[in-house]
Parts: sequence; C-alpha cells; structure tokens
Amino acid sequence: MSDTSEIRRAATQVGGVTLHRLPSAADARGLLVYGEALKEVPFAVERFFVVYRVPGTEVRGEHAHRKLHQLLVCVHGHCNVIVDDGLVREEFRLDDPTLALYVPPMVWCVQHQYTSDAVLLVLASAAYDADDYIRNYPEFLQALAEGNGA
Amino acid sequence: MSDTSEIRRAATQVGGVTLHRLPSAADARGLLVYGEALKEVPFAVERFFVVYRVPGTEVRGEHAHRKLHQLLVCVHGHCNVIVDDGLVREEFRLDDPTLALYVPPMVWCVQHQYTSDAVLLVLASAAYDADDYIRNYPEFLQALAEGNGA
Repeated sequence: MSDTSEIRRAATQVGGVTLHRLPSAADARGLLVYGEALKEVPFAVERFFVVYRVPGTEVRGEHAHRKLHQLLVCVHGHCNVIVDDGLVREEFRLDDPTLALYVPPMVWCVQHQYTSDAVLLVLASAAYDADDYIRNYPEFLQALAEGNGA
Repeated sequence: MSDTSEIRRAATQVGGVTLHRLPSAADARGLLVYGEALKEVPFAVERFFVVYRVPGTEVRGEHAHRKLHQLLVCVHGHCNVIVDDGLVREEFRLDDPTLALYVPPMVWCVQHQYTSDAVLLVLASAAYDADDYIRNYPEFLQALAEGNGA
C-alpha cells in the first residue's frame, strides 16, 4: 500500500488520480481542515455524501463513473480505497481528515476495511445519475477500450 | 434545547435558520447520507471545512457572517450549536449525520460541548473572506439595526 505520510499533492500510479494534503489550521480549540471548490477541490461541488457505520467486512464502491469527479476524505477512523484505471491498480489508506483522494471519471474505485468508527466524506461534481455508473468491471474495461467514458 | 427527533425540514425560532433531515440510505453495507447543492443544501457549495479534535471545554464560532450561508452537519459524535438573530436565541444538538442546520447570513453562531470524537462538517456558500466576519456581538447587533449585513 502506498505511503501517504509526506503527500502535499501528488500524482499516483493510476491515471488522473491524485492525492492531496488539504490545508488545515490547529489551535487550542481543535483542528480545522478546509477546501475550496475549483481550488483544493478540483471541480465545482454539486453534491456531497457521507458513508458511515460500514461493517468492517463490507466492500463499497465497486464501480466507475463515466463523467463524475469525486474527492474522498475519511474524516474519522479510516478506510482503504482501491483505484484502478484498467492498467494499474493502487490502494491507499485514508486515515486523516487532511488527506484527500481525487478520483476522476473512468476510474474503477473500491472502498473496504472501514473501521467501525470510519466516516467517509465524498464531494462530487454532479447530481446523482444512475446512468453515469459502470457497475461491471468487464464493461468498464470495454468502455475504456472504446474510449466512450465521457 | 429544542427536540430534533422528528424533524424533516423545519423553521426554528431564529430568523432564517432551518433544521433539515438529510435523505439517507441504509443497507447491509452501512449508511449513506447525501445532499445536492441548491436542493438539500440551500445554496451553491463553494467551500467545505471540517472541525475535529475540539476539547470539550472549548467554544468555537462566536461570530456572524455578513453574506455567507452555511450548512452544519455533525458527522461523528455530537456538538451543540447556538444560533441567535439578535432577538431570539436557540440551541440545537447536532448528533446524527442526517441532521443538518442551515445558518443564513446575519445570524450569530456558537458551537460548544463537542464530544472528543465529534467531527463537524460545514458546507459554505463562498470562499473564505475575513471581511465577511462580524466577531463582536455588540457590533453584530449594530449591523442588524443598520440593516447592513448584506
């Protein structure tokens, strides 16, 4: 699994996927991490969702999006995220609110090994659209081969 | 403190402040709560921040914004939020990721009684702007009296 301890903003081995260390401020009143749309968040934010109380044995995601951009931040506990561009597969542990994983369209994404207290925040570039999902890995590879993700 | 157990979307006693029960989906793989900009989130999302590891004795906020709209969601643990429009003051406990508090401009807002594991997600309608803050309560009342929040 890739070491994320020294990341500021870094490419990964997976096409288009980047790891970001979000800006933060700490004082006696606690910690604050932040991001602005089209800046630390590399797209306009049209939706957010929060995933929590995931049994540690469960696997989530297991799909790609044709057009959706997402930024994943585990704001409590930790979980592992696998990203796969059809050629390279890489796994990251999101274990701090300052660590964000940007997942562009046409990347297969799987989340697993949630701790019982894990809370995954996802910022997304568009409203929910069932037609934007590719839920079958062979179909994902086929769409990549045909270049018809977008 | 106001009872929030039966809220879907409700006005509060404080001008413009509303409580929202965000849509959610539960299955064997855990829980998911979501919101779309200009829908469940009543503004365009230009920024997010996350507050965490706040000592239980600490008080955060204690300011109003001239123009900023915010949606507060405590996605882990819980904290209390006091809102005050200069006439009425009301306190809410945010204790579930499905419960969101919308705070419009020109409302004095204080957060306190964070549990040690509390994580407060705030979605905001604009980039950070130091000039948008009113950090002094008498000045807040004066700005209200002059109608010059916006």
